[in-house]
Amino acid sequence: MSKVTEIERFFYGNVTIPQFDHITANKAIDLQKQLTKPVGSLGKLEEIAIWMAGWQKKIKPTIKNPYCLIFAGNHGISNKGVSAYPSEVTSQMVENFKKGGAAINQLCKLAKIKLMVIPIDLDKPTMDFSECKAMSEDEVLSFMQLGFDSIPSSCDLLVLGEMGISNTTSATSISCALFNEPVDLMTGIGTGIDKIQLANKIKIIDKALRLHGKKFKDPVSILSCYGGKEIAAIAGSVISARMKSIPVLLDGFITTAAASTLIRFKEDILDHCLVSHLSAEPGHVRILNNLKKEPILDLNLRLGEGSGAAIASLILKAALTTHNGMSTFDNAKVSKQISS
Amino acid sequence: MSKVTEIERFFYGNVTIPQFDHITANKAIDLQKQLTKPVGSLGKLEEIAIWMAGWQKKIKPTIKNPYCLIFAGNHGISNKGVSAYPSEVTSQMVENFKKGGAAINQLCKLAKIKLMVIPIDLDKPTMDFSECKAMSEDEVLSFMQLGFDSIPSSCDLLVLGEMGISNTTSATSISCALFNEPVDLMTGIGTGIDKIQLANKIKIIDKALRLHGKKFKDPVSILSCYGGKEIAAIAGSVISARMKSIPVLLDGFITTAAASTLIRFKEDILDHCLVSHLSAEPGHVRILNNLKKEPILDLNLRLGEGSGAAIASLILKAALTTHNGMSTFDNAKVSKQISS
Repeated sequence: MSKVTEIERFFYGNVTIPQFDHITANKAIDLQKQLTKPVGSLGKLEEIAIWMAGWQKKIKPTIKNPYCLIFAGNHGISNKGVSAYPSEVTSQMVENFKKGGAAINQLCKLAKIKLMVIPIDLDKPTMDFSECKAMSEDEVLSFMQLGFDSIPSSCDLLVLGEMGISNTTSATSISCALFNEPVDLMTGIGTGIDKIQLANKIKIIDKALRLHGKKFKDPVSILSCYGGKEIAAIAGSVISARMKSIPVLLDGFITTAAASTLIRFKEDILDHCLVSHLSAEPGHVRILNNLKKEPILDLNLRLGEGSGAAIASLILKAALTTHNGMSTFDNAKVSKQISS
Repeated sequence: MSKVTEIERFFYGNVTIPQFDHITANKAIDLQKQLTKPVGSLGKLEEIAIWMAGWQKKIKPTIKNPYCLIFAGNHGISNKGVSAYPSEVTSQMVENFKKGGAAINQLCKLAKIKLMVIPIDLDKPTMDFSECKAMSEDEVLSFMQLGFDSIPSSCDLLVLGEMGISNTTSATSISCALFNEPVDLMTGIGTGIDKIQLANKIKIIDKALRLHGKKFKDPVSILSCYGGKEIAAIAGSVISARMKSIPVLLDGFITTAAASTLIRFKEDILDHCLVSHLSAEPGHVRILNNLKKEPILDLNLRLGEGSGAAIASLILKAALTTHNGMSTFDNAKVSKQISS
């Protein structure tokens, strides 16, 4: 009998899932009230600091060991002309990440994030999911476990990204199934296809949704149908972060879709995740409306790689540096609000 | 006869105003096309990098010497109960800035911005502009010149902020006059007044607008009526940056209102300025609609001090680090887009 993995134990065992620590968060709220500024005047920065406090269980949360993990995978469906780029670009970009030439390398350097690139069997794409299942459920579990195992124990902020030519097709199909959203409104240009290619992409996704359906009771079966390997690994890493109470910054459309599969297991399973930015992919806003999550940034990005999440980590740092570093009214001898 | 100041020469002389350099910007656009990412996939970051290139006249623009200037002033109108804080808080916060305890200190440290605090005669507030003019036109010119003179010559990005108890009342009056907007929709809670105080603030602004009117042909006369000293200095520093082709990050409501006065002199005078964030003050979005400017961030901030602008400088850095540091398709041996 093979060993039971953490992912199997998570789904099929009876594990206790760490929750937001309201006691610490309330202490962080008290701290905010003493800082030399009108209460609430730092808006979302205050919310973020308090949210980080609750997840890190520290009144003064920190970002000292942020990691960006980029999972990369290839997709059989790329043979159907759904992307503007050939599938060899996945491995070429992985090389680019390793050599330091991609957008995410510059952004990680700026934000002092350690970058880990995890290519998953790039020479073995998933099956074309418009014809059959992308992969078996056992494969899904193994890639989720790979994602689960990839989080360094010292990590205090997880920045998640991905690379995989044609993976917006996968993510769009997943999102249409999960949230029962219309394909034409969910499908975007990805890396930059034209109108004719977009019509084809919509047709392919439609076909896949007719083949596999939209009703799924668990994350594993939906990922088995629509793929991909990197998407399963992202979902596994989100679980891992939750089990360790590590706050997560989801990047854009793909990463959010990957994490969203987990709500089929438990509705509040993404409470430890923030959405970094609103992607230019039209499906993203629809996923976020379903998840009731607001993006931190809106910069019209559609690159992936974790780029938006790396940028959003700077906003988190702004939140923590003010929360942790400001003087109090008493210390600074600043008069408090006049009571009216 | 007294010496003619730069501000006087700017308004009344025949100076050549530096313009956006389209030749350099076009070269920056060409560079963007070669970087290892789909063209346009970095959205606003690409626009910002190209904009910076055009203003700095460098294909690869830089942020090596960013300065945050906080101008501080006191307002006679604070006697009318328009703020949640007593006017001594202006000088107390200036002390806090100097000691490093305020939000802007932490944010400048994070973003590696040099902070300069410029208090302007804090013991001499402007006159109560609901009763008479806030100050003379000569005073306005002198405070504009002070702002003009405050920009270090090495500065390559100007981050502008302010401190002044009751200055949302000044900024709201200015904006209502400039853009003929309704007082009740423009007026907000500032540092955090309650509903009764807000009704009083609206009444005071209404009274001032009836006293001074809304029709002004030049920035100096509008600032003379509604103040304040720090607002005039901000306007002067925006002129100075323009004359030196230094890109400017305006902070929130007050800073944008201060800069907006200059459009009464020349419609395109704020082309070298970006708006950092959308303030929680309800008037800000209305000013931005009039200026046809989009904020970079929307974090529900309403602190001032340059806090939003310091945060937005991180987004500018993200724009430049990708623009300047990424590999090209040729260098990284990444396949280009499939032509359809």
